[in-house]
Amino acid sequence: MSNKPKKTAISVSRENNFPKWYQEVIKEADMAENSGVRGCMVIKPWGFGIWENLQRRLDQRIRETGHQNCYFPLFIPLELIEKEAAHVEGFAKEMAVVTHHRLVAKDGKLVPAGELESPLVVRPTSETMIGESFAKWIRSYRDLPVMINQWANVVRWEMRPRLFLRTSEFLWQEGHTAHATEQEARDETATMLEEYRKLAEDWLAIPVIPGEKSASERFPGAVETHTIEAMMQDGKALQAGTSHYLGQNFAHAADIKFQDKDGGESFCHTTSWGVSTRMIGAMIMTHGDDDGLRVPPTIAPHQIVILPIARDDEAAARVLPAADALAEKLNNTVAFGNVVRAHVDKREVNAGEKRWSWIKKGAPIVVELGPRDLDQNTVMVTHRTDIYGKASQDSDAFVATVREQLEAIQKTLFDEAKAYRDARVRTDVTDFEAFKTVFANDDHATSGFVRAYWCESVESEESLKELGVTIRCLPYDQPTEPGTCVLTGAPATKQAIFAKAY
Amino acid sequence: MSNKPKKTAISVSRENNFPKWYQEVIKEADMAENSGVRGCMVIKPWGFGIWENLQRRLDQRIRETGHQNCYFPLFIPLELIEKEAAHVEGFAKEMAVVTHHRLVAKDGKLVPAGELESPLVVRPTSETMIGESFAKWIRSYRDLPVMINQWANVVRWEMRPRLFLRTSEFLWQEGHTAHATEQEARDETATMLEEYRKLAEDWLAIPVIPGEKSASERFPGAVETHTIEAMMQDGKALQAGTSHYLGQNFAHAADIKFQDKDGGESFCHTTSWGVSTRMIGAMIMTHGDDDGLRVPPTIAPHQIVILPIARDDEAAARVLPAADALAEKLNNTVAFGNVVRAHVDKREVNAGEKRWSWIKKGAPIVVELGPRDLDQNTVMVTHRTDIYGKASQDSDAFVATVREQLEAIQKTLFDEAKAYRDARVRTDVTDFEAFKTVFANDDHATSGFVRAYWCESVESEESLKELGVTIRCLPYDQPTEPGTCVLTGAPATKQAIFAKAY
Repeated sequence: MSNKPKKTAISVSRENNFPKWYQEVIKEADMAENSGVRGCMVIKPWGFGIWENLQRRLDQRIRETGHQNCYFPLFIPLELIEKEAAHVEGFAKEMAVVTHHRLVAKDGKLVPAGELESPLVVRPTSETMIGESFAKWIRSYRDLPVMINQWANVVRWEMRPRLFLRTSEFLWQEGHTAHATEQEARDETATMLEEYRKLAEDWLAIPVIPGEKSASERFPGAVETHTIEAMMQDGKALQAGTSHYLGQNFAHAADIKFQDKDGGESFCHTTSWGVSTRMIGAMIMTHGDDDGLRVPPTIAPHQIVILPIARDDEAAARVLPAADALAEKLNNTVAFGNVVRAHVDKREVNAGEKRWSWIKKGAPIVVELGPRDLDQNTVMVTHRTDIYGKASQDSDAFVATVREQLEAIQKTLFDEAKAYRDARVRTDVTDFEAFKTVFANDDHATSGFVRAYWCESVESEESLKELGVTIRCLPYDQPTEPGTCVLTGAPATKQAIFAKAY
Repeated sequence: MSNKPKKTAISVSRENNFPKWYQEVIKEADMAENSGVRGCMVIKPWGFGIWENLQRRLDQRIRETGHQNCYFPLFIPLELIEKEAAHVEGFAKEMAVVTHHRLVAKDGKLVPAGELESPLVVRPTSETMIGESFAKWIRSYRDLPVMINQWANVVRWEMRPRLFLRTSEFLWQEGHTAHATEQEARDETATMLEEYRKLAEDWLAIPVIPGEKSASERFPGAVETHTIEAMMQDGKALQAGTSHYLGQNFAHAADIKFQDKDGGESFCHTTSWGVSTRMIGAMIMTHGDDDGLRVPPTIAPHQIVILPIARDDEAAARVLPAADALAEKLNNTVAFGNVVRAHVDKREVNAGEKRWSWIKKGAPIVVELGPRDLDQNTVMVTHRTDIYGKASQDSDAFVATVREQLEAIQKTLFDEAKAYRDARVRTDVTDFEAFKTVFANDDHATSGFVRAYWCESVESEESLKELGVTIRCLPYDQPTEPGTCVLTGAPATKQAIFAKAY
């Protein structure tokens, strides 16, 4: 086999057609596909395995920060939605509505029957249902804080669905907490945003900018929305996780109150925070290259794929047990706090095609093992971050250093993504004319974020609409000097991140 | 504190009112509650933690037996349901039907809008959706077997819901596999039923009878349905898990075929198998006693609860750190292949009430730790299986033997349940008159199963209907001698289990 992998996978480059490249990476990596139901996807084993590894890590941190998992109903009574819809007039939301609870046969067809007295909505998020429970559960300051989380599917009808990024049904976790004091609730909001930052950066190798949303980008009903914003390889922003301080707004709507130590009655301060399968879309668009997906070792379903190379049965009789033995040795080592995940690919497929399939899937390390390698006690190792750098390594040394090799790949992915992003955050744009020019230009090579002073007026955001640009966040990290608003020229004390976004 | 716990919890005994006892155990153990949506429950941390531990174990075994997790859509197009409904005439199924995808405001109310061209059904099970995918994924014998699983919520509208046992929405896993040969699919069906038996017996300490369902009790469309049947403490049967050999029936309906080695085209043989949150209902009704829940140590969210006993701040300053240190030591030991789960209960609640709350919740071991215990390096230990046998143990010896103690509790639960069941499987009923007398009698002390010869005729099952009795299964374990059918008096070669059931 030549050292140069045969390229048969991704027909377009990121530069030529980023949206098409994205679709093809998902297809070639066999992660997910559209189903017969518009906007609903089938997540296949490689895609779902990535989600499970992300989930395992985040779930552990959610527990370690004092939360407990629960499960709340899929359906929400329409009256509850009405109650929390602060302004019913003007309300129009894309939600799946259940109106019947039976199917019956009629003229050889099935038709809905058993009309519900009042329709049910498939949960788009669970503040309303969980608020009802909190109101029942919380009586006294002794019951506080209540800190819960659920892993669930939610539905928001999508007219223009895209795999992982915008699907009518998606998977997520939603955390909901109630506290006696404002400070405690604000601290909780900050704690969980920091957990999301660590999940993105330390686990998914996605550099993010943590900050606060502007008023117009807040979650409806929230006092503050905090976010982590990532840059995709087309320069667009993707909101990768949000944490909301809800003040007493939801507590008032759902009547969540408690008797305090002095016997008085107060409303709770609540929070909510969520991360979804969208994060997988962010991972693809941050790390993928023109050869396919690259999965950070922390979350790769297989961190190491071993390809037994055998031209005949005799060779196979030597190589297959050796491949299994190598996998077992690797699976007894530890990386990133978990046992290493090695897999032997025994499919009846030719070796070149097999190797290429794992490059497309983004397996961090591919190991080829043939009779000659066995004779020399070596393995042929390819890192996904350097697919033309295939090299022979001593087999024992490989096992002994596999943790460091996986860590190096993880670091490379983060460093590359960070360098890419940092080079595309423009800080030299100081007036609106220059600003418009930047975003009028759709050149893949120069697109990105603008970081500039902003006067924080809601009206100034109006001028962004026609450009298709939004304020992504006001980063926590702010300059000490005041400046001039890039949109209005008014005095400003804070900088914002401006970008086109997913 | 007296050695005798104050009984304030369950107002009725199992013997006096089993259904009411069941509801109260769930309430007092704080496991789950009804929500505002009829038939949909809220699973609270103690109930959900039990489910997660069950899930973790089963998920591991599902992987170890060669399956991969995926995720399929929540919604199923009506046309797909029609396609698989072999006989649309006479069909009437309780399913949630989505007819609209939008809510809009009208006269200050929200109303459904955006009617769908064709309604969607919320999945009651996913054979149809997964069959569609299998038909796309499978081309050649090289693609086989396909062995997948998903953890999901499903909806079957319930008119008479009961927490965990019968809820409109419930959580489960559903495995679906496709194979080239009948033998392979039959082996898979058997493998997964054996996994369910091990889950029930080795993990949940619930003795079960594995066997095959009679024709009339089969999953619609299945060639064979295999089941594990458990006996609850009211003598009724509960089907705790099923595994179906579907033959080529679903493959024909969904067009799941493959090209075999000789180039010919064949339909796949498929299977499906599932276990749900119903298993938690089985656990409650198998192990609970008149003091509340008893959770097998394998799946208890906290296996050991430590209660720091301190009358004043001075004592608390000594006891609290000692309780944390003890928990840490315990959490560094291993039982049932996992790290031990110990929890320190620091709530501001009096010690007696606290202790009693954990008895009601069924925590396997409760440890009290006060200043006098610290002086003597002892701990006061109560096993949930012997709540009046509270005894002082040397603290180090307790840590050193905690694994054995947990294993002993696990064994006691299984042995007690097995003895209870075995005493209530009657094998002395040989004619229909005696049979009717057994089931006419609703005496809690003698109710149970009848194991007797059965002629396997579908018509004979008719006579069971008015008795409210069903054939639970034909156990795998069969006598070698033929006999006489208990229902018809006809010659019979096999025995069946007859019971009232949940």
